[in-house]
Amino acid sequence: MSSRTDSGRSYHKECTGDALDTAKDHSRDEAITLFGSCFCPFVQRVWIAFEYLGIPYKVYEVDPYQKPQDLLEVSPKGLVPGLRLNEFNPPRGLNESTVILEYLQDLSTATTSKSLLPSVGNPYARSLVRLQADHVNRNLVPAFYRFLQAQDPEVQATAGKEYTATIETLVSLLERTEREVVEQGGVFGDGERRALAIGLGLWFEGGSLGWIDAMAGPWLYRTKVVLGHYRGFKLPSNPKLQNWLDRLFEYPAFKATRSSDQLYIDSYERYAFNRPNTSQVANAINSGRALP
Amino acid sequence: MSSRTDSGRSYHKECTGDALDTAKDHSRDEAITLFGSCFCPFVQRVWIAFEYLGIPYKVYEVDPYQKPQDLLEVSPKGLVPGLRLNEFNPPRGLNESTVILEYLQDLSTATTSKSLLPSVGNPYARSLVRLQADHVNRNLVPAFYRFLQAQDPEVQATAGKEYTATIETLVSLLERTEREVVEQGGVFGDGERRALAIGLGLWFEGGSLGWIDAMAGPWLYRTKVVLGHYRGFKLPSNPKLQNWLDRLFEYPAFKATRSSDQLYIDSYERYAFNRPNTSQVANAINSGRALP
Repeated sequence: MSSRTDSGRSYHKECTGDALDTAKDHSRDEAITLFGSCFCPFVQRVWIAFEYLGIPYKVYEVDPYQKPQDLLEVSPKGLVPGLRLNEFNPPRGLNESTVILEYLQDLSTATTSKSLLPSVGNPYARSLVRLQADHVNRNLVPAFYRFLQAQDPEVQATAGKEYTATIETLVSLLERTEREVVEQGGVFGDGERRALAIGLGLWFEGGSLGWIDAMAGPWLYRTKVVLGHYRGFKLPSNPKLQNWLDRLFEYPAFKATRSSDQLYIDSYERYAFNRPNTSQVANAINSGRALP
Repeated sequence: MSSRTDSGRSYHKECTGDALDTAKDHSRDEAITLFGSCFCPFVQRVWIAFEYLGIPYKVYEVDPYQKPQDLLEVSPKGLVPGLRLNEFNPPRGLNESTVILEYLQDLSTATTSKSLLPSVGNPYARSLVRLQADHVNRNLVPAFYRFLQAQDPEVQATAGKEYTATIETLVSLLERTEREVVEQGGVFGDGERRALAIGLGLWFEGGSLGWIDAMAGPWLYRTKVVLGHYRGFKLPSNPKLQNWLDRLFEYPAFKATRSSDQLYIDSYERYAFNRPNTSQVANAINSGRALP
């Protein structure tokens, strides 16, 4: 275990690295304004989707712990991400990362040829993706924070095992979908197999970015960087998992939204030492409530 | 507060009333088997959708606390609802009530004219429904169980206020959507206003069953019957809320899946006295974890 002393580092308020370049490229007014914070994985989910789907947007970096008034107008709890939909008069707000992802997916269905999900005509393929996503939201993400915030060594060890188990379950859900694509030729036609493969995203070698890449990728990256640094955590040694993450972390839409590793290490120190009032997310974990 | 003594009543293992008639009408083999339990609100969500969308199904009542092997095959944690998709060889399983709802919605988009959601071409209208549903899943449903399982009178009082607040937030989300339909004529065209109205479901007078009716209705009914009985709970006195629930509880697809009130009162006594090992849901609430 490294970094046993809280050095008092604070969270960053501006992106670095590739993410900074991307933010600068998206600083002009557009129909949609993305309210985001550079270190936030819920924001990165949405940002990846904008990049991949090619939907025009402006990045607006906010300090989510100061909760400026214009953020509260689009996201009542002051949580990022938020969208301001400027084509309406007055503009409308939209919040919650999964709701925003669905919104962007629906927008792109109407306007572009890219999609994070199998098309509506493939209900079974879509349902397998939704099973993966449901697991990520309800199990993997909370387990990440419980592990990162745990201070007692025994609690940490247990939380680390529980977190590993959530990753293994995600892998088993991806493998279930993969079996449907490659081994069950008699059951599905070519169109359905293609839909199932879309549902695998980058897990499928040669695939494109998919729903689960956007949903889970931001935490898996912080697993490598932040849990690696503060908890000495290693991902389960599974070559398929490793290959997936290698492809995902370097994929253009993902890489374009990545700041430098140091930004994440600095910004998560408050979580790693479970400082009081770190965030609404941290408080929810400490009090055994669902994430806000 | 009524019913202060645990009379040791157990949960029912067969529907009663209208739900029993419906189950009997759906006892023949079909392409989809619905694994359900008569008192379970997660099951009722899905059952309502089958009834409303007109998708053929067979009801298969299981005891979720015994977890028969065929249930485990379609739902790995042994939780209801589960679907067995018999058109595949071998049959496939599907679990998680919200994943199943999405699946049925996608199926019906391909095959029938009925829909619980605004169509994909109306991303904003759909996003408002998803905001409502996200709130129900993450806040209203857990708050229902926390209130029902709380034993200490002070904790009960606090939990009752928190539960009321989640209902009021749901109302405010519905009212936000309603304002978009009726007051913002200059912003939306007729098609978008129709889509927004579909997103309101039965909240909109003259509307049809919608996503939020299926998502929230089962808990709102148990609020009236079960929380009314065990906690003397009254819903917030809001005529619009009351009118919505009056329409919803008597709507054909909802009524067809309702058992007698006594079935719910009996089946929830274990929750109301927080008996040990009541269920995976109850254990999750007691240990401050997300619902399974």
